[in-house]
Amino acid sequence: MSQRVDLRFNDRPVRVPLGVTLFDAASWNGIAIDSTCGGHGTCKKCRIRFKSEPPAPTSLDLRAFTEQEIEDGWRLACRTPATVEADVEVPPLTTRPKAATVGVGRQVILRPAVRKRYLELTEPTLADQVTDLERILAELTDLSPRPDLAVLRSLGTTLRQADFKVTAVVADETLIAVEPGDTTGRAFGLAFDLGTTTVVATLLDLTTGTPVAVESMLNKQQPFGADVIARISATMLDPAARDKLQALAQETLAELSSAVCKAGDVLPEEVYEVALAGNATMVHLVLGIDAESLGVAPFIMSTRLLPEVRAVDLGVPAHPQARAVVFPAFGAYVGGDITAGLLASGMDRDSRIRLFIDIGTNCEIALGGREWLLATAAPAGPAFEGASIRCGMRAADGAIEAVAIAEDGDLKLTVIGDTEPGGLCGSGLVDAVAALAEAGIIDASGRFVPTEEVTGAPLADRLAMVGKERVFVLHWSADRDPAASIYLSQRDIRELQFAKAAIATGWRILLEEAGLTTDDVKQVLLAGSFGSYLSPKSAIRIGLVPDVGSRRIIAAGNVAGEGAKMVLLSIRDRAAALALLDEVKYVELSDRSNFNDRFLTQLGF
Amino acid sequence: MSQRVDLRFNDRPVRVPLGVTLFDAASWNGIAIDSTCGGHGTCKKCRIRFKSEPPAPTSLDLRAFTEQEIEDGWRLACRTPATVEADVEVPPLTTRPKAATVGVGRQVILRPAVRKRYLELTEPTLADQVTDLERILAELTDLSPRPDLAVLRSLGTTLRQADFKVTAVVADETLIAVEPGDTTGRAFGLAFDLGTTTVVATLLDLTTGTPVAVESMLNKQQPFGADVIARISATMLDPAARDKLQALAQETLAELSSAVCKAGDVLPEEVYEVALAGNATMVHLVLGIDAESLGVAPFIMSTRLLPEVRAVDLGVPAHPQARAVVFPAFGAYVGGDITAGLLASGMDRDSRIRLFIDIGTNCEIALGGREWLLATAAPAGPAFEGASIRCGMRAADGAIEAVAIAEDGDLKLTVIGDTEPGGLCGSGLVDAVAALAEAGIIDASGRFVPTEEVTGAPLADRLAMVGKERVFVLHWSADRDPAASIYLSQRDIRELQFAKAAIATGWRILLEEAGLTTDDVKQVLLAGSFGSYLSPKSAIRIGLVPDVGSRRIIAAGNVAGEGAKMVLLSIRDRAAALALLDEVKYVELSDRSNFNDRFLTQLGF
Repeated sequence: MSQRVDLRFNDRPVRVPLGVTLFDAASWNGIAIDSTCGGHGTCKKCRIRFKSEPPAPTSLDLRAFTEQEIEDGWRLACRTPATVEADVEVPPLTTRPKAATVGVGRQVILRPAVRKRYLELTEPTLADQVTDLERILAELTDLSPRPDLAVLRSLGTTLRQADFKVTAVVADETLIAVEPGDTTGRAFGLAFDLGTTTVVATLLDLTTGTPVAVESMLNKQQPFGADVIARISATMLDPAARDKLQALAQETLAELSSAVCKAGDVLPEEVYEVALAGNATMVHLVLGIDAESLGVAPFIMSTRLLPEVRAVDLGVPAHPQARAVVFPAFGAYVGGDITAGLLASGMDRDSRIRLFIDIGTNCEIALGGREWLLATAAPAGPAFEGASIRCGMRAADGAIEAVAIAEDGDLKLTVIGDTEPGGLCGSGLVDAVAALAEAGIIDASGRFVPTEEVTGAPLADRLAMVGKERVFVLHWSADRDPAASIYLSQRDIRELQFAKAAIATGWRILLEEAGLTTDDVKQVLLAGSFGSYLSPKSAIRIGLVPDVGSRRIIAAGNVAGEGAKMVLLSIRDRAAALALLDEVKYVELSDRSNFNDRFLTQLGF
Repeated sequence: MSQRVDLRFNDRPVRVPLGVTLFDAASWNGIAIDSTCGGHGTCKKCRIRFKSEPPAPTSLDLRAFTEQEIEDGWRLACRTPATVEADVEVPPLTTRPKAATVGVGRQVILRPAVRKRYLELTEPTLADQVTDLERILAELTDLSPRPDLAVLRSLGTTLRQADFKVTAVVADETLIAVEPGDTTGRAFGLAFDLGTTTVVATLLDLTTGTPVAVESMLNKQQPFGADVIARISATMLDPAARDKLQALAQETLAELSSAVCKAGDVLPEEVYEVALAGNATMVHLVLGIDAESLGVAPFIMSTRLLPEVRAVDLGVPAHPQARAVVFPAFGAYVGGDITAGLLASGMDRDSRIRLFIDIGTNCEIALGGREWLLATAAPAGPAFEGASIRCGMRAADGAIEAVAIAEDGDLKLTVIGDTEPGGLCGSGLVDAVAALAEAGIIDASGRFVPTEEVTGAPLADRLAMVGKERVFVLHWSADRDPAASIYLSQRDIRELQFAKAAIATGWRILLEEAGLTTDDVKQVLLAGSFGSYLSPKSAIRIGLVPDVGSRRIIAAGNVAGEGAKMVLLSIRDRAAALALLDEVKYVELSDRSNFNDRFLTQLGF
């Protein structure tokens, strides 16, 4: 059973998966903690002070702090896991870290594409008639950018009004701005995780690598359907829907941009670059690219790699010349969000064979390591979103997010928000089915065993009938009416079986393609928020993931968003993301003749 | 004295400088004549038939035609100079010339940046999931373009509606369009000569290299002043003037585009590339770039070489993704029009030392050949435009365009449009002053000699007084009132002296810089329309050009416009234009300590 822990950083409440370090927990939530090593326990700079009961000091803490400091609650954030509720003070930054930790423990050495150079130019004379642009380029000794036409429009006036003391702003190979005076201290980037359901924006300070603000909201395209197929269908039924969907996605990005800029006290013009990770459909729609052929066999993208995109093409309020890095996609159903995720989780750099699973309506799976990578997509359906489940709901307040069998043999439910349970979310569903399988209430085929066979057994008193359907009651209503209670139906279990079979078939075919068995898999990374709340033990129990031992099943968090941050902070990681396109072999499951056979064998528990 | 000849090609009247071949005369006026050799007398395809009296056949004509054809008036256009009025029939094109003749006898081998490829693609399947874009790029074996984002937006639909039979349109390194079906037969470009006064547009068929239509009109910026300084001043006085001037220039280009497209029955979307040659001020203004620093010392451009410009940046109605090639400039007063002119006149390829002079309010001068090139600008003032001359006027109907001393010793005037003379234009002014110097009416210092010294001499009866000023009457009014007549005043002569001294100082300083004398100059090219009408003999007489013999003084025509055509037809010439930036050394006259001394010595005749 996976848990979340409530923390407070400088009085700001955040909720993080159990066990992550406070350094990562802060970083993921946009709270900057001093560090030069990037959370590797060597620089001893990530000092935080517990206002609540501090954990026992580590050996490193004892070397980093005086006895009095230890007594006062000082600890190193990178060596302190989040295990219990805590209230923590983070001191103001004292250094500019030249490295930032993002993704799954990935340390990114700061080398953003956006660079600023303050120049004090000599003024032209009749004897020195070098043009304004060439005068600037001559001083940018380590860069050879080409100018945007828009920069030239006001260049003459800017130079003369600023007495030839200006800051050149270079993004990648382009001179995107020349600003009066010295503005080198201010440079920001916006990283977006454009999900079908949720969109997250992180404002990054490109001079320090630290997140300034994070905001998320539901994708405004929701009224057009919950999943990508519904949205693509909308564009096929109504010619105007494509423009509407583009506008709604852009509005979502724009609202988030404004929110993080406001929170960070940053002007839109100070945002010089944008990165966006999204699935192929989201990327097509937000850029106004025909998405129809993504929705029908043979599922063809317009392109894997996009040409130059600007922030304005995404509707993002930023510097008018800001470029956008949009992650390339491997296929129609293994999109740029997965490219970003693989980058953030270091799948391409780890020597171990690892399995990466992003569970959702569409489930993306990657297998491999430094030498090779395979990827595929499995249509899991909406079970994990709680959508096709009788008492299902999203992972919001009131959702049963975890189910376990207590020592007394009865059920123990964990509910989000400490309220009365209102339904079952995906992680609770997996837990519940795992528990029923464990307790022998359902058999290996997923069928409820006949009531007479389990009478008297633990939990058997929760079996009931709702209409003509057998159900298992998770939480009784006050009047103990099964139909008014929160229950699991036989059909719900079938839905989960289909979903997990699709996923298990996916990773099994990848293993087969690589000539490996589950024993070769050294780690399973569960990407996305769902992966953070899923119980590794339950996931193994129902066969959703290979049995590599629950400690080797890692919640990787929002790796798409982390990947987007990485490409803003490091051109090397940007190049690595691009290289993934060639390094990853995309395996199309629907093309496999043995897919259906495999699928059927994976239905059971 | 230079003359013009009236011709009719397929009943279309044109006026061309005396002596150009009918092939060039037709080509310059947008009338396509068959040719594969480009006017070099080898292919014998440029057949035309004289409806008026034909010239004597050349030896080549006798080999190219039967006796009967010679009798019927057939001649080769490339071997027939325009010497007398003629009415000519041009047969329809039978072949697509792979070369085109443009500029000063420059043969351009057709290799436009715009290339179309008709593709019949295999349709994707589950087993062949190559994306739409990569499917196209894979077939473009000889090209590796990057797509425009706009192309991707409708790519999926276009491919499927056209059954995967499409035409890819590549401009330079960019895939700018994918069109349904086979459109390879249609590809056009627009070449602009954006002059301060006159703007010329030529619509070119890029598949054949032939001009389809030519139109010209006055630059709509005229109300802001006749010369570049007036227009720059306008932007300095009124902050809104920059936008207005940009809009007016763009309107001029747009109207011309529409006119040539209509004349050629070409859709704007079929225009895939645009080229523009203009002086630095015109280029700055049309692109909305601050021009202020061009107008005040030390006369600094924003840039010599522009970044990527699109047709839409120039306000030109064309394919939405059409790029614009804007000629780079050497300096604030030796602009892209001169780069184009040097290209079109082959200054960079000729082994001879030649002098290139573009006479106008600002006069641009280049000297050199294949090995080296020098360029400078000389502020000639408005005398050659007739603007500061008492009886001056533009070269329009009624202007005295040529003045000579007839055998009877009296004046012989040539008037544009065969009407009563209404004034004196630039070429007439040069002729008149040359004639007066020749006749001894003015002395070497430019002063009218005292009346008593010339009494009884030829032309002396034309000396008169207007107010307190001595004048020379060129054309008496009916009542023989000097003030109502067309005359030349002492001040007019001074104006011309200043203008010609500026120019002569310019080319003398270039000669000095190169360590050469006038004897080393093998040819003088006079660019622009003014150069076409200027009498070489008079120009030599007053010292405007070095005395290299009048047969070596060549009217080069609208070389700026020709250069613009060349870069649309040939990427090699485009590269050559770019290379000129490095090959030409710009010499700033106002920086020279000896400029004033030189100038004073050049004032006399």
